[in-house]
Amino acid sequence: MVDEPVREDFLYSQIADRLAAQIEKGILKAGDKLISLRALSKEQGISLSTAFKAYVELENKGIIEARPKSGYFVRFSTLNSPERLHNTPPRPLIEKANVDEMIRTVYKTMTYERVVRLSVAAPAAELIPEAKLNKAMVEALRKSPNSCTQYDDVQGNPALRKQIAKYAFNWKGNVSEDEVVTTQGCMEALIFCLKAVTEPGDTVAIENPIYFGIFNIMKSLGLKILEIPCHPDEGADLEYLEKALESTTIKAVLFVPNFSNPTGALMPDHRKKKLVEMLAVRQIPLIEDDIYGEMYFGKTRPGTCKSYDKNGLVMLCGSVSKTLAPGYRVGWCLPGKFKDKVLSSKITHTVSSAAPTQAAVANFFETGRYDLHMRHLRKALHTQCLRYVQAISEYFPPDTRLVRPQGGYVLWIELNKRVNAFELFESAIQESISIAPGQIFSTDARFCNYIRISFGAPFSAAIDASLKKLGDLIWAQTV
Amino acid sequence: MVDEPVREDFLYSQIADRLAAQIEKGILKAGDKLISLRALSKEQGISLSTAFKAYVELENKGIIEARPKSGYFVRFSTLNSPERLHNTPPRPLIEKANVDEMIRTVYKTMTYERVVRLSVAAPAAELIPEAKLNKAMVEALRKSPNSCTQYDDVQGNPALRKQIAKYAFNWKGNVSEDEVVTTQGCMEALIFCLKAVTEPGDTVAIENPIYFGIFNIMKSLGLKILEIPCHPDEGADLEYLEKALESTTIKAVLFVPNFSNPTGALMPDHRKKKLVEMLAVRQIPLIEDDIYGEMYFGKTRPGTCKSYDKNGLVMLCGSVSKTLAPGYRVGWCLPGKFKDKVLSSKITHTVSSAAPTQAAVANFFETGRYDLHMRHLRKALHTQCLRYVQAISEYFPPDTRLVRPQGGYVLWIELNKRVNAFELFESAIQESISIAPGQIFSTDARFCNYIRISFGAPFSAAIDASLKKLGDLIWAQTV
Repeated sequence: MVDEPVREDFLYSQIADRLAAQIEKGILKAGDKLISLRALSKEQGISLSTAFKAYVELENKGIIEARPKSGYFVRFSTLNSPERLHNTPPRPLIEKANVDEMIRTVYKTMTYERVVRLSVAAPAAELIPEAKLNKAMVEALRKSPNSCTQYDDVQGNPALRKQIAKYAFNWKGNVSEDEVVTTQGCMEALIFCLKAVTEPGDTVAIENPIYFGIFNIMKSLGLKILEIPCHPDEGADLEYLEKALESTTIKAVLFVPNFSNPTGALMPDHRKKKLVEMLAVRQIPLIEDDIYGEMYFGKTRPGTCKSYDKNGLVMLCGSVSKTLAPGYRVGWCLPGKFKDKVLSSKITHTVSSAAPTQAAVANFFETGRYDLHMRHLRKALHTQCLRYVQAISEYFPPDTRLVRPQGGYVLWIELNKRVNAFELFESAIQESISIAPGQIFSTDARFCNYIRISFGAPFSAAIDASLKKLGDLIWAQTV
Repeated sequence: MVDEPVREDFLYSQIADRLAAQIEKGILKAGDKLISLRALSKEQGISLSTAFKAYVELENKGIIEARPKSGYFVRFSTLNSPERLHNTPPRPLIEKANVDEMIRTVYKTMTYERVVRLSVAAPAAELIPEAKLNKAMVEALRKSPNSCTQYDDVQGNPALRKQIAKYAFNWKGNVSEDEVVTTQGCMEALIFCLKAVTEPGDTVAIENPIYFGIFNIMKSLGLKILEIPCHPDEGADLEYLEKALESTTIKAVLFVPNFSNPTGALMPDHRKKKLVEMLAVRQIPLIEDDIYGEMYFGKTRPGTCKSYDKNGLVMLCGSVSKTLAPGYRVGWCLPGKFKDKVLSSKITHTVSSAAPTQAAVANFFETGRYDLHMRHLRKALHTQCLRYVQAISEYFPPDTRLVRPQGGYVLWIELNKRVNAFELFESAIQESISIAPGQIFSTDARFCNYIRISFGAPFSAAIDASLKKLGDLIWAQTV
């Protein structure tokens, strides 16, 4: 059974987007009354029901509100949201801290009962189509000649590889299934790619700040790290990298160009192209972690570095852990000219990937369920992002600065310099609120007055109350 | 639903075993007539139907045969099976060979269509209870709060860990679920354990000959190898190891004490104890690969080194890849005092293991299905082993020597010194028969006139014809 596809751009969505743009530009300000449904319908030549849907969409996003018997009003204008966080200058280290210990504490306390998890950069359970995925699993087991009990093709389930290759079309990739190697999640893909192009002792360039899993991988493989500043506005600082390449021998670069974690930064496509060309001249492999690439809020998916790769030097890694089911551990890489080395790592490490989960995900893609799910998920995330930003601008001190992400799961927030994020984390967890303190995103605990808030969970009274409480805790540390 | 448990020792089985023992000792010889069913029933005070079942069991194992209108006769006595292969002295290297290339060739050709796979040390698909395992998966998904879509407990599915701990009772282990860490198959378990106790450049002692996956892991982790001769009769040469310890700094030992691959060697329990004590004095960790331990042909499961461990130095690794479903990639380790380091490797490498497959296997254990399946599987493997040995003794040249395994999946066969096993492999694959040449089981391609035959597939006319053809090819190389 194939679920019915959804047209990307319904008329009401187009109209809602145009209205949102007017509000964003300040043409309509907070408190302004909107024209009536009847007037909108007349003005745009649309039905009353389409006009109504357009206003409901803006209401869901928290941008406008309906006041009983008065009509619709602008509730929130991005102009009065916290100041945008621009390029983050590396700051001097304030304290000697054990990053490992902080990470362990954050992870341990996160699983406490009744904790509101603002620290998890992944979709909340209510956004996962569990029943449909279970159905895909049952279908997949039934169709497999040996019910997925036997060793799978070493390169990965062929049906899944075909679907991944097909999806590459969205980022302007031209990929065949033979170029795809499946893995146990994206982390394993990154490790196999790094092992293919480095030896212990080599130096690899990564972003700073960055998800701590990345620098833990480096440590585990005995690699040295060169930290490249990552600016919320356009991602890794390519000019800094270019200068570093003059004086340092770098064996590989590992970046997260689309909605990097924790900054949420999106590298513009023309800079992706520049990066690929800069590395191609020097024959340096680029490992592109594209795990958040599908979670865009705009009209089209951002591109990838891989799509500009002419030399097989870009190794793109992805997974369904952020889009569909973290528990399935289904990931992949497109390792370019290093495929044989990646395969050899995979054989040595795991022989082959788990067959049932790969087959279930392949089925979920094939039947069109993935496409449908992703449209829903992107819309939900965009709405959640806006609601969280609104709550933060209401509750946090006015000197708060935050990145306005164009996709992904997280808000990277700069607080007053007097705030120590790890202390804030400690007082928040006392209130059953889990946040990610900035310190855990660099090897030297640099981002002391930053926090990362995930908007993976639908906005609710509990979330609102947690953000309000968090705001109070920040105020307490600021004054 | 719980399947009905089977009593271990049915009366007919006991009687069949006693008769088999008489034949083994030569009290009854090939061609001897057995007493009639009626006489056996009278003599043993059993029903005619029980007597009949006893003879059928021996017939299935190929030990006796029913001749129409004449009664039952001894068909095969182990006394006329090929000479037993005893301790294998390391032999000088005959040729400069690329072991990697040989392994790749063996693996590539194995998947060709219509190939009889005598090279796969794993259960054939017909021995896997697919329908029951599918049922376990559906039950597991239904019972999981989030249908297994969310990240699992980092240490592994708690229900599965509980079952693994419970199963330790069979090898006289006293283990709590908190000591178990699940992994993606046994290979990943071995890697995490090695990473916990070594650094690149360290030396690790392994058996020789050994499954090539083991020395590929060493290479991948940058470890040096010290090869310890493995004798088919009692496994790794502990006296050799003890001497080596005097002159070499060894950071860890990785052995397969139960039914090692390819020799099938079983280290007697008193020698396991000796090994553990020898290493404890020197504080050297022992990684015990117990992947074949459950596939015993005797009355009781062989012990493990882990059961003699008083210092948390033994790290036992296992999986269901040889017992239930290679495609599920469900393995585990009991890392003793190195648990934190293993967990840290697991978090870095994969965050957590795939949730659905672990939950399905846990369910399969919990409902008693695993126990029932293992009784069937052990019996089937023992029968298959006997039938393969019988065919080999009939078809292979008389100077063939082979190990008589007490469990596991493989026969390690020494051929006439004129035979080059890789050339034999090459001519066999022309006939669509895949075997494992001895060369691929050591880093220097040492065992040139050895082959490994797996008896994982039920004996059939096709297997019989393949072994006959293989015998012809060996004759051709010998004379």
